Amino acid sequence: MTDPQEAIDAETDAAGVERDPRVDQRTAGETQPGIPFIGAGPGDPGLLTVTGKELVEAADLVVHAGSLVNSELLDTYCDDAEQVSSIGKDLEELVPLMRDAYEGGRDVVRLHSGDPAIYGAAVEQMDALEHEGVPTYIVPGVTSAFAASATLRTQLTLNGVANHVAFTRPQGKTLDAEDDHIGEFVEMGDVTTCIYLGTHAVDETMDRLLEAGHDPETPVAVVYHASWPDEDVIEGTIETIGERVASAGYRASAMVVIGDAARKAGYERSYLYDGWANRDATDSEADD
Amino acid sequence: MTDPQEAIDAETDAAGVERDPRVDQRTAGETQPGIPFIGAGPGDPGLLTVTGKELVEAADLVVHAGSLVNSELLDTYCDDAEQVSSIGKDLEELVPLMRDAYEGGRDVVRLHSGDPAIYGAAVEQMDALEHEGVPTYIVPGVTSAFAASATLRTQLTLNGVANHVAFTRPQGKTLDAEDDHIGEFVEMGDVTTCIYLGTHAVDETMDRLLEAGHDPETPVAVVYHASWPDEDVIEGTIETIGERVASAGYRASAMVVIGDAARKAGYERSYLYDGWANRDATDSEADD
Repeated sequence: MTDPQEAIDAETDAAGVERDPRVDQRTAGETQPGIPFIGAGPGDPGLLTVTGKELVEAADLVVHAGSLVNSELLDTYCDDAEQVSSIGKDLEELVPLMRDAYEGGRDVVRLHSGDPAIYGAAVEQMDALEHEGVPTYIVPGVTSAFAASATLRTQLTLNGVANHVAFTRPQGKTLDAEDDHIGEFVEMGDVTTCIYLGTHAVDETMDRLLEAGHDPETPVAVVYHASWPDEDVIEGTIETIGERVASAGYRASAMVVIGDAARKAGYERSYLYDGWANRDATDSEADD
Repeated sequence: MTDPQEAIDAETDAAGVERDPRVDQRTAGETQPGIPFIGAGPGDPGLLTVTGKELVEAADLVVHAGSLVNSELLDTYCDDAEQVSSIGKDLEELVPLMRDAYEGGRDVVRLHSGDPAIYGAAVEQMDALEHEGVPTYIVPGVTSAFAASATLRTQLTLNGVANHVAFTRPQGKTLDAEDDHIGEFVEMGDVTTCIYLGTHAVDETMDRLLEAGHDPETPVAVVYHASWPDEDVIEGTIETIGERVASAGYRASAMVVIGDAARKAGYERSYLYDGWANRDATDSEADD
């Protein structure tokens, strides 16, 4: 097999010259030849998409994201398939495993948690497989921030409160301090900031916000394992949430939501049902 | 019926004092008593969630977001239910309509496009209904940015290219110029900026970015009706995309994706499969 980074570089170089014809020929959600990279959703088996469910049910081999995917989902939809966790396996191991199964005529699916577009590592596997002659495609899913918002009975955008949403992650082993934009998002005032991959660093993150002078009273909600049976909600502020999360003992798998929308506070009705969407034939928040 | 804004204020005042017990008692994705506010997903019927499908199939009355929801989805799942479009109806009309049907013993669902947390107007209807004694809850869905990303065969976060994602909308009738953060997101350099509700304003938005000195070569992809049968992809740059979208004639229903991730350019493998996620029991990008 080709070295994965070389395969990735070759595929991206090709993409720079000529668009993959499937971009035009296929629509999102359409079943295609090849290995689907499926967003499993946040955890609850019912939050997998209909197409995702059908593909997982029909699979002979399901390569999944280990403990990041709810085992209840695997038990419900693919109990009789071979199941392989990707945790601890690098590209050099995963790519031949999926390629060989696919070339052997088996139905292979790759199951990522949430949506593959958000902090997934789907595309590098896809490019490496494509370079080996195995077609692939993405089936989108529900990201955990949406499950967290549903649990909190709020919206991430909320009229008069939050006009924008940021999906972000904090500085650490894989993100330099200068690429940590959490303070900038919070500073904007009308952005709901959703922190992925940051459960272990809630306290440090909040300390940095306090040191930078952000309002300590800014609401923060932390939703552990959104949509899982052991889902848990911790609410507080930039000042208080760090200690509360530490007390609860969570070090992973929680969504941190910063901003007034987390508390659904003080919003205004949108007055946007009034038909001007249709009248003007332009985008609007008429409904969504 | 109570004036909707008064109902909203009363419900949010109550939420400020005491947390809704359902936040703790129910998990996202769980079916609850009341009217579900369901994210219909981006358009393709297969991109509705399994739970969303079951609820829509069982409904007697489906109040949907008109042309924002793919009629194929309605035909597939609820052809025998009463269907009402919310377009052109204000809260004063919608709330009694849903309340009366629910109190009359009918199964009522409210179908929003995408996910209700993103530029939905779900919560204001929910609060108005709750104030009338009708319980409600949210069933999350797949947002159109994820379908656009799947069509483009990329990720919105991409190692070495984009560490963060912004969901935003441009200044206009309902957003003041000072609350338009598109330039700030683009300026950060490692943010993939997804513009909702901005198809009619692509040209103006790009002109503002050019005037502010942003790199004219920054990739921009526009995905019209992501996952619908008439899905269309237009690619270009901050300099070229405005004219291309104008030529295509789209004025609504397209997702605008700004940043190198839109072109899946120059990313690096993540080296994040190496098991340290499980070893350290902290968040990681081990897989997702």
